Amino acid sequence: MNKDLKTQIVDLVSPDLEKVEQAIKENLSPHLDLVKQIASHLLFSGGKRLRPLLFIHAARLCGYKGKDEILFSTIFEYLHAATLLHDDVVDGADMRRGRPAAHTCWPAPQVVLTGDFLLARALDIAAETREPRVISVIANITQEMSQGEIDQLGKKGRTDVTEAQYLDIIERKTAVLIQGACQGGAILAKVPRQKENALKSFGFHLGMAFQMADDLLDYTATAEQLGKNPGADLREGKLTLPLIYSLAKAGPEDQKWMEKRLSDPRFDAVRFSKLKEKLVALKGIAYTQAKAKDHAAKAKNSLKGFDESLSKTILTYIADYAIHRKV
Amino acid sequence: MNKDLKTQIVDLVSPDLEKVEQAIKENLSPHLDLVKQIASHLLFSGGKRLRPLLFIHAARLCGYKGKDEILFSTIFEYLHAATLLHDDVVDGADMRRGRPAAHTCWPAPQVVLTGDFLLARALDIAAETREPRVISVIANITQEMSQGEIDQLGKKGRTDVTEAQYLDIIERKTAVLIQGACQGGAILAKVPRQKENALKSFGFHLGMAFQMADDLLDYTATAEQLGKNPGADLREGKLTLPLIYSLAKAGPEDQKWMEKRLSDPRFDAVRFSKLKEKLVALKGIAYTQAKAKDHAAKAKNSLKGFDESLSKTILTYIADYAIHRKV
Repeated sequence: MNKDLKTQIVDLVSPDLEKVEQAIKENLSPHLDLVKQIASHLLFSGGKRLRPLLFIHAARLCGYKGKDEILFSTIFEYLHAATLLHDDVVDGADMRRGRPAAHTCWPAPQVVLTGDFLLARALDIAAETREPRVISVIANITQEMSQGEIDQLGKKGRTDVTEAQYLDIIERKTAVLIQGACQGGAILAKVPRQKENALKSFGFHLGMAFQMADDLLDYTATAEQLGKNPGADLREGKLTLPLIYSLAKAGPEDQKWMEKRLSDPRFDAVRFSKLKEKLVALKGIAYTQAKAKDHAAKAKNSLKGFDESLSKTILTYIADYAIHRKV
Repeated sequence: MNKDLKTQIVDLVSPDLEKVEQAIKENLSPHLDLVKQIASHLLFSGGKRLRPLLFIHAARLCGYKGKDEILFSTIFEYLHAATLLHDDVVDGADMRRGRPAAHTCWPAPQVVLTGDFLLARALDIAAETREPRVISVIANITQEMSQGEIDQLGKKGRTDVTEAQYLDIIERKTAVLIQGACQGGAILAKVPRQKENALKSFGFHLGMAFQMADDLLDYTATAEQLGKNPGADLREGKLTLPLIYSLAKAGPEDQKWMEKRLSDPRFDAVRFSKLKEKLVALKGIAYTQAKAKDHAAKAKNSLKGFDESLSKTILTYIADYAIHRKV
């Protein structure tokens, strides 16, 4: 079912996708070749272009009749790339999408500044929408994301992170950007606030489902599927829901056992696999799957006030894909 | 004359200055206390609020009748602070305005992310102007500044930087932001393009004069005046106009002597003072002073089409102050 769904979505979006790829290339017009190299390393490394596609189909679902949705959709890919560049430097992550992270190929300062450039590029295109509320959405995304990342940094290595804190972090880290892309499309189409809020809600729940599914994949996927080693979050000291839930539900003995595992830096494949077994037994995996599924259902439910259309089908498929994907 | 001019300006702007200080405080409303601490460390360390004041008086000179020039002026202080935070991390600078740089007090990642937050905060307020062209100006500033800083990084330690390359770097590093503050004020006042361009030109030349004067101070001021040790640019491997001009004009013997000095890491006060003598003899200091004076004159000349007013007096005094200041 999984591969079929992905193929179906790709078939439906491929004409747009080609145009998005082209627009991302064309709008990347920095003065310095180095900026282009660093930005391209990340931008053309096989991203799914999820955020531009969501923006495009949110706008179309809301009846947008202009011709600029492809151009404006690049805003959200540049913004996404800017935050990935900064986050990878900040987290010291080595790999991204199966390739070395940019800051392992170029000095970190240049990578940070390229992130700044991409943020400014997103902004420049956003100004062309002539919709100040699109700018407000982008400003809000960036404020939330930068604070979410700082918050997550402060919690690194701590084993007492609560589910509420986790939800707050993933909302800022992932959901606000996906939510912003969907809301931005609605603003562009100038729909009434009620419909704009429906798209905002769709984006929020989709973003939460996506991040939970992502956090699950860090336990359940193979290195080949992930493009990085499983358990990477854990090695970076980031606790995600499968573990947070299991720790909260565990008896004193299991809790002690898990905390000992977490504090041991020698986190090899065997030890990781034992921890995974524990998370299955304590239902941390199942609980996270159920939560992700619930968010995906809420996302789809947000669209119920819209007539059937190709864009609605695509957005619905994406919500399903969010929780069924293997990568 | 110098102190008198500063006192005169401060007297003229002090009612606005208090309101600007208040607005900068009030608009800094992050969710996280850590972000506030890091941002405040830089924002309330005795900055001159030059950019907000320029924005305010550009708007008033252009006949702005609204009530939001104080609020909107904070955009340019936040933007300035964001770039200072990133640049200090990127350059590894230890001191800023006589205090330890933020990244020596907090981890660099948090400082980078606070810079992102301040950029987003600037953007959020810019969206409130409901002037998409103000957003374009800000986007352009950030694109130019990030690339200017990368360009400067690439030239670190090189002794073959030309005057043209130097001019290009300081334009991006300093002049575009000051130019943007002045142009932004004119856009807010909705003046015809010709007057907007006059303010843009004023800001450009003022910015160039300011940076040249700053680069001179690195040779001529005391540590107490600067809030950091003189010769800091040189120790960071940054060649500025006094040296670039002297190197270009020097005979082979002087050139060799200077290059030897530059390649020697033991850059103590005595060696620095000898180099300074050489720059005086080769007229690098005098040439830079003349260039700065020329830009200040051009800045003032840009305002000739405007009637006399308090704002015109203030902008004119600031142009004079740019080249006469000792700190």
